[in-house]
Amino acid sequence: MPHTQIAVSEAGTTLFFAPKQELDRARNLNAPATDRTRLFATLARLNALYMIAKAGSGHIGSSFSSLDIVSWVYLNELRPGKDVYFSSKGHDAPGQYSVLTALGVLPFDKIHTLRRLGGLPGHPDIQTPGMVANTGSLGMGISKAKGMVRANRLKGVEGRVFLMTGDGELQEGQFWESLQSAANHRMHEITVVVDHNKLQSDTFVSNVSDLGDLVAKFKAFGWHVARCDGHDHAALAEVFREFATVGDKPKILIADTVKGAGVSFMAHTAMAEGQEFYRYHSGAPTADEYRRAAAELVADAGRQLAELRCEPLQVETVRVTPAMPPANPQRLIPAYSEAIVAAAERHPELVALDADLITDTGLIPFRERFSQRFFECGIAEQDMVSQASGMALSGLLPVVHSFACFLTPRPNEQIFNACSEGKKIVFVGSLVGLLPAGPGHSHQSVRDISAMAAMPGITLVEPSCPAEVRPLLDWCVESNPGPSYMRLVSIPYSIPFGLPEGYRPEPGKGVTLRKGGEVAIIGYGPVLLSEAWRAADILAREGISAEVINLPWLNRIDAGWLKAALDGKRHLFALDNHFLIGGQGDRIAEALAGFGGNVKVGFSRIGIEGLPECGTNDEILAYHGLNAEGIAATVRRRLEGRSS
Amino acid sequence: MPHTQIAVSEAGTTLFFAPKQELDRARNLNAPATDRTRLFATLARLNALYMIAKAGSGHIGSSFSSLDIVSWVYLNELRPGKDVYFSSKGHDAPGQYSVLTALGVLPFDKIHTLRRLGGLPGHPDIQTPGMVANTGSLGMGISKAKGMVRANRLKGVEGRVFLMTGDGELQEGQFWESLQSAANHRMHEITVVVDHNKLQSDTFVSNVSDLGDLVAKFKAFGWHVARCDGHDHAALAEVFREFATVGDKPKILIADTVKGAGVSFMAHTAMAEGQEFYRYHSGAPTADEYRRAAAELVADAGRQLAELRCEPLQVETVRVTPAMPPANPQRLIPAYSEAIVAAAERHPELVALDADLITDTGLIPFRERFSQRFFECGIAEQDMVSQASGMALSGLLPVVHSFACFLTPRPNEQIFNACSEGKKIVFVGSLVGLLPAGPGHSHQSVRDISAMAAMPGITLVEPSCPAEVRPLLDWCVESNPGPSYMRLVSIPYSIPFGLPEGYRPEPGKGVTLRKGGEVAIIGYGPVLLSEAWRAADILAREGISAEVINLPWLNRIDAGWLKAALDGKRHLFALDNHFLIGGQGDRIAEALAGFGGNVKVGFSRIGIEGLPECGTNDEILAYHGLNAEGIAATVRRRLEGRSS
Repeated sequence: MPHTQIAVSEAGTTLFFAPKQELDRARNLNAPATDRTRLFATLARLNALYMIAKAGSGHIGSSFSSLDIVSWVYLNELRPGKDVYFSSKGHDAPGQYSVLTALGVLPFDKIHTLRRLGGLPGHPDIQTPGMVANTGSLGMGISKAKGMVRANRLKGVEGRVFLMTGDGELQEGQFWESLQSAANHRMHEITVVVDHNKLQSDTFVSNVSDLGDLVAKFKAFGWHVARCDGHDHAALAEVFREFATVGDKPKILIADTVKGAGVSFMAHTAMAEGQEFYRYHSGAPTADEYRRAAAELVADAGRQLAELRCEPLQVETVRVTPAMPPANPQRLIPAYSEAIVAAAERHPELVALDADLITDTGLIPFRERFSQRFFECGIAEQDMVSQASGMALSGLLPVVHSFACFLTPRPNEQIFNACSEGKKIVFVGSLVGLLPAGPGHSHQSVRDISAMAAMPGITLVEPSCPAEVRPLLDWCVESNPGPSYMRLVSIPYSIPFGLPEGYRPEPGKGVTLRKGGEVAIIGYGPVLLSEAWRAADILAREGISAEVINLPWLNRIDAGWLKAALDGKRHLFALDNHFLIGGQGDRIAEALAGFGGNVKVGFSRIGIEGLPECGTNDEILAYHGLNAEGIAATVRRRLEGRSS
Repeated sequence: MPHTQIAVSEAGTTLFFAPKQELDRARNLNAPATDRTRLFATLARLNALYMIAKAGSGHIGSSFSSLDIVSWVYLNELRPGKDVYFSSKGHDAPGQYSVLTALGVLPFDKIHTLRRLGGLPGHPDIQTPGMVANTGSLGMGISKAKGMVRANRLKGVEGRVFLMTGDGELQEGQFWESLQSAANHRMHEITVVVDHNKLQSDTFVSNVSDLGDLVAKFKAFGWHVARCDGHDHAALAEVFREFATVGDKPKILIADTVKGAGVSFMAHTAMAEGQEFYRYHSGAPTADEYRRAAAELVADAGRQLAELRCEPLQVETVRVTPAMPPANPQRLIPAYSEAIVAAAERHPELVALDADLITDTGLIPFRERFSQRFFECGIAEQDMVSQASGMALSGLLPVVHSFACFLTPRPNEQIFNACSEGKKIVFVGSLVGLLPAGPGHSHQSVRDISAMAAMPGITLVEPSCPAEVRPLLDWCVESNPGPSYMRLVSIPYSIPFGLPEGYRPEPGKGVTLRKGGEVAIIGYGPVLLSEAWRAADILAREGISAEVINLPWLNRIDAGWLKAALDGKRHLFALDNHFLIGGQGDRIAEALAGFGGNVKVGFSRIGIEGLPECGTNDEILAYHGLNAEGIAATVRRRLEGRSS
């Protein structure tokens, strides 16, 4: 049988997927709906696992915990053309893709394109057929559903909206903000399923910020509530049957699920006693993990088919070779971990706050060293920032962490309020910029400089390499009297440059990384400065000498320094790992405009225009013209006088 | 008795306040705490009313509903130096000021300075002694309190945090986001009082977005709950006595109160059957209303003193002359009301959403004409924006309204998410810019261009006068394929200019309002363009000829148009009714920098640096150098070659 052929070799891995005809067979079997759906969900898991393994990243745990429900809803509840389903949590996109490709809503071949340019984005996006809302940032689902219901009612159209939320997601205020008016307006058209798998990104929900009595809460907000095993299709059938009889209330099902369900060792219930972190929330399985997981799923499907007295499963295979890791990668997050611990040793008033991303934000060493000074706030960024304000008002120095895509927009008003109090707070946003490009635009933070730059009294900094992390953090902690925002690239990167001996950051002033002639390139951060360096190599071979300057200050510029730096330059290129509008280039442009035409230098900006695309890092950097070749091409075009 | 002398004349009004010694007498009376507090609260109401009448604006209803509670907390619960009290809703600042001035925490003379430069800001600010947190934007209070508690615990300091919330405020998601972890961490140090006066800014909470069963909700979130009459000091005493015995839970009191309590005709319970809007939420009383209200309060205090067999009340008087209204004021909001109704007549898919500001955002005519297409969302901006996204995904054209200070930062991520879907949505933020300057920096929207400019695909516009509202709205509705943000000044303003005959807005291009010589001033909106016009008058008398150009496009500029507009100019001034950073001037600077030194024109920016101050409009415009004299002075200095 094909599923015995799983093999791993040094040259690559064989991946398995269930072809469309097998999924068609499952849902058309002459068997009860519960059996058909169970088999379909097992095959959907196999295909979700395939997609994630092939992409090299994705959310297994959440896809698997939700797939029995998602399969049930699509196969047995949704009336095509009338009802819609979407995920509010969004992490479970691979699971939903495996269903949509099986149903032909998406071309089946798309399963080979997860997180690739032109393929299936890491989080749901309406450009993908079958996806009815952009998600990826938590807590918006019920609000969106209400808008859809109101539109249907206004148009006199009958239609139901099914949506899935996570349970960690219930820590977000918008979830609760959205509940009451759905009940007030008797939005019986809405059915919410909480995929209550008990874990959020890092660890157990109960460890992060316990949810309390969910049934009592939902009832208090006027919703009709049910609870069942989210992997038991008969129980799901019963709940949805009962829901259909409730005509005056929105409905919510607390579905008790297992994160990673379907594969024994990926199930969170297999975690060791006392194990804190769940391993299959995001990322990709190792080759060995993949092989064992796929084997289990194939065997499970085989058993189900045998019980139903059907032909064995036929899977198809794809051989993949792993992507090459970057050469000598350098990492900012571990450097940050060290820097904040060092700062905290000197500053007993320094405390760290996190919003369910302790691993990604590099705070585990801090928590180990200063457990009393670490505050896990859960997926509740607004609450976290206002808590930080209360701490700062009480004499502490809060350092506030999350991914930049969540930290800077979600509590944007709370950050303004905190900054208006003038106390010292350091905001640290990681996962900044275009890369990683796999999760898609909900996670690509390319608008945060704009969102933060005008906070009263704030200074924005971004280190270019591990060595620059500590001096910049120390500047924020010790030299800056007001609030700061530090922007951190999270991906490891091959960095060809080093900082000059004895370098110390000076506000508003840049540092030359590589001397050059008539062309100057100013930027920040490891990704684009590395690409600029390599662009300078390319240009040098063509006889163009480009200076590469690191300006780690994102919303301050010293005009005198800039004028001096431009001495002898004919062309200046400002690089932004950010939308052009609102990026560092705005500050450079302002300084240039202030020279009043007395400094003759051509000026071009290179950055992101339009929504960033999802794909591999190399694909997307190239797509947006921000790899070395793209930067060199823009410089060349501009020097030749063609439009950039 | 002094309180019989209340008088109004054409030349002005006599205002009354209770001097400090009378408030000292009240709280030191040989009488039960309940009687002392009741009298104190009555005098505090008189002084809050005085402050608001003198300032010409403020929140009477909310100050009065909360004052019995605030007085009780300050006089009987707070241990100085240990416990703190603050208001999360912030509207009730005049009430709290009347208590703080009475207690000597604030110099008593400050009661004459509400909403004046250097005086008491319209909303709480920590620059004011006795104010421990900046408020003004709803829903942050419990989060801040948790931060204070965590700081106390870390420092080993014992201290309680009392805070007041509104009831409309409970529509904000952050309120619910903040609840559970306070219970999880057993923050018994926190006591929240909900001033449950049943009304939010426009009308009854139950009409806007009913709160459901609050007791059940708070219990479900793990809080200890009590409920009592918030004007009954004996009941308040009993609740706080009982709260002191609860050592393992945060505590919340639902205080049933009357908005405007203490003055018969200001009490919301005096509203006529079927009357929708409450009249004393904000603004100022008329002279007659003031006279009647003050007479009632003085009489009430007199009765209480007589019952306690004490000397009669001695009040002091101040004679005020009303501020002159602007000459021939023009108003953008009524023009907007007409424009959106006209657009909705042509576009049946156009719907309007509001967040509890139907009066201020000019939506009453729309609701009257299209009641089915109007959606009141309550104080729930995140929910509103994501609902709009759901509507846009379903083929409607949502126009989303609030004050800009709330609309652009609070749902900043939701706006990004909606814009990432690429559908047409129009965001309309009113109360933009530095004026009105009375409410203070929580309401002065001078960061919204920065917060909105980089939303994917968005175009930002601001009309300069009533006549420009409709063509710009029509452009957003009909010509712009993507999302738009319209910025609207709310205050009436004397506008000295008109638009040229046949003017039609063209994206990125400005329109000359007044021809001039070597100086060009580019700006937007009625306030600064009017001041620029008057600055041009001043400069003309000095022989400096300034051209005034209206550029209603805030994040787009046509470089070709700018180059042509600068022909013959030697100096360009960019005016921003916004922080300098992130304002329209950034786009002008970018275009200028793009000329590469080939256009020799001096460039200066005039706008807001640092947190805006609170005061009268004239005071604050002058303080920030943005009145005609200030603009003229900057132009003059720059032409003379001195630094601006």
